[in-house]
Amino acid sequence: MYKSYGERAKSHPSKVASRLLNLMESKQTNLCASVDVTKTQELLELLDKLGPYICLVKTHIDIVEDFSYEHTILPLQGLAKKHNFMIFEDRKFADIGNTVKLQYKGGIYRTSKWADITNAHGVTGAGIVEGLKQAAEESTDEPRGLLMLAELSSKGSLATGEYTQKTVEIAKSDKEFVIGFIAQRDMGGREEGFDWLIMTPGVGLDDKGDSLGQQYRTVDEVMQTGTDVIIVGRGLFGKGRDPEVEGKRYRNAGWEAYKRRIA
Amino acid sequence: MYKSYGERAKSHPSKVASRLLNLMESKQTNLCASVDVTKTQELLELLDKLGPYICLVKTHIDIVEDFSYEHTILPLQGLAKKHNFMIFEDRKFADIGNTVKLQYKGGIYRTSKWADITNAHGVTGAGIVEGLKQAAEESTDEPRGLLMLAELSSKGSLATGEYTQKTVEIAKSDKEFVIGFIAQRDMGGREEGFDWLIMTPGVGLDDKGDSLGQQYRTVDEVMQTGTDVIIVGRGLFGKGRDPEVEGKRYRNAGWEAYKRRIA
Ligand SMILES: O=c1cc(CO)n([C@@H]2O[C@H](COP(=O)(O)O)[C@@H](O)[C@H]2O)c(=O)[nH]1
Ligand SMILES: O=c1cc(CO)n([C@@H]2O[C@H](COP(=O)(O)O)[C@@H](O)[C@H]2O)c(=O)[nH]1
Repeated sequence: MYKSYGERAKSHPSKVASRLLNLMESKQTNLCASVDVTKTQELLELLDKLGPYICLVKTHIDIVEDFSYEHTILPLQGLAKKHNFMIFEDRKFADIGNTVKLQYKGGIYRTSKWADITNAHGVTGAGIVEGLKQAAEESTDEPRGLLMLAELSSKGSLATGEYTQKTVEIAKSDKEFVIGFIAQRDMGGREEGFDWLIMTPGVGLDDKGDSLGQQYRTVDEVMQTGTDVIIVGRGLFGKGRDPEVEGKRYRNAGWEAYKRRIA
Repeated sequence: MYKSYGERAKSHPSKVASRLLNLMESKQTNLCASVDVTKTQELLELLDKLGPYICLVKTHIDIVEDFSYEHTILPLQGLAKKHNFMIFEDRKFADIGNTVKLQYKGGIYRTSKWADITNAHGVTGAGIVEGLKQAAEESTDEPRGLLMLAELSSKGSLATGEYTQKTVEIAKSDKEFVIGFIAQRDMGGREEGFDWLIMTPGVGLDDKGDSLGQQYRTVDEVMQTGTDVIIVGRGLFGKGRDPEVEGKRYRNAGWEAYKRRIA
């Protein structure tokens, strides 16, 4: 039933998605590290340790206190090259088309310049996809990909049922730019010719959640419900944890589950 | 049926809301300017012109290319003092509680330090309110207020029906911190003891919309459906427009509609 990452890479309409799928296949990892730390040095050190185990880094660049393009983004790109991973800025755009266009390509962060992938909520309607796409086209020659937030990991999430369905409809408006979803399970679409990547946060092997509504499922659980990329944050670098040990552990768990799936 | 802004100020549980309501009453304006420009100088010049006509400025600080705390925020605060208006950063937080907490108080922008008001989508669930509130409490002694995005102005918005209702439920979780909604109409709540401020964007006297899904209603329309504060962007400073002329025009339209409502 399931195709391998490498097979999917061959026929994917998005350059970003096929690059990522190829990288996952060759590096044998479907782990994305969510490096939610507030200092540039900590971010870079953490990534240098986790680099060998990940296909993707997920950033919240707007929590980095001492951010500068030169001292944060350039070394980040250096590490992406050194360890061969891609970059996903978890911006969760959620405004009207005209505003997200300005936010994505502009400001201090100029996200479209350095993030291979970013994401957006469907809540404002389809204009958000068009606005973000225009921003990418106007600001960079590099291929860019968008994930829509179809489902969330947090307690009491409103991204369910009809909301999720409508987000999937919005995603269909652009087959090349929208590469998939942040979701807790497979979102279908193959019979209509879509090969969406599913990336899933809220993954933890040791905890059930946090005090502000986060909820964790295990690697096996999320892989069984159709995830392609597992996103792990505090499970890798939270208090008392050794990022190298945990990076290896989550990478192995994700890859074993993947191999069982395609077997 | 409708109470005056001044009367509402007296009994409002939020310091931020009562300060804003008093300011609206004394300055005789319910106009919020959305200054969506990408350079600090342009932002400050625009605000110096619009200052006399507004109760509130709404910023997208993350579209300002040459942002710095010293050269953008400090002069912005100076103008807020000079012209007597408050500051609303339209961040549209939309992540899990732990992440928005880091985003609101940290990063380059340190939004909780300077924005009287910010806003959040309900999509991730009630943890977002708690996360933002903790951030405010930990980072500033100034009163802070949150608006929840209950409805949106854009075409194909998913913030309708059950989604809107559930956002209103989330808002009820904190009577002091959540001061109201971004919405297209009144959201009720008075019989349960809530006096929510309704702020409405998508207001334009000359245009029907833009090419990326924005939709405009007139000042009279939005005031008739229960808005307290009208939010106007390109109607004030768009191409060929004189911000002083338009500032006066929208301020007058908003205030006249308000006077008819409380008459
Ligand atoms: O539904 C979601 C969506 C996202 C990403 O788009 N996230 C993000 O994953 C990460 C999970 O981190 P954790 O593993 O430490 O809980 C955080 O950065 C959080 O903002 C979630 O936690 N849940
Ligand atoms: O539903 C919404 C919510 C908001 C604010 O939270 N906005 C914002 O109002 C402003 C409207 O600008 P305009 O009057 O130029 O269309 C933009 O900053 C946009 O991001 C909207 O346009 N629609």
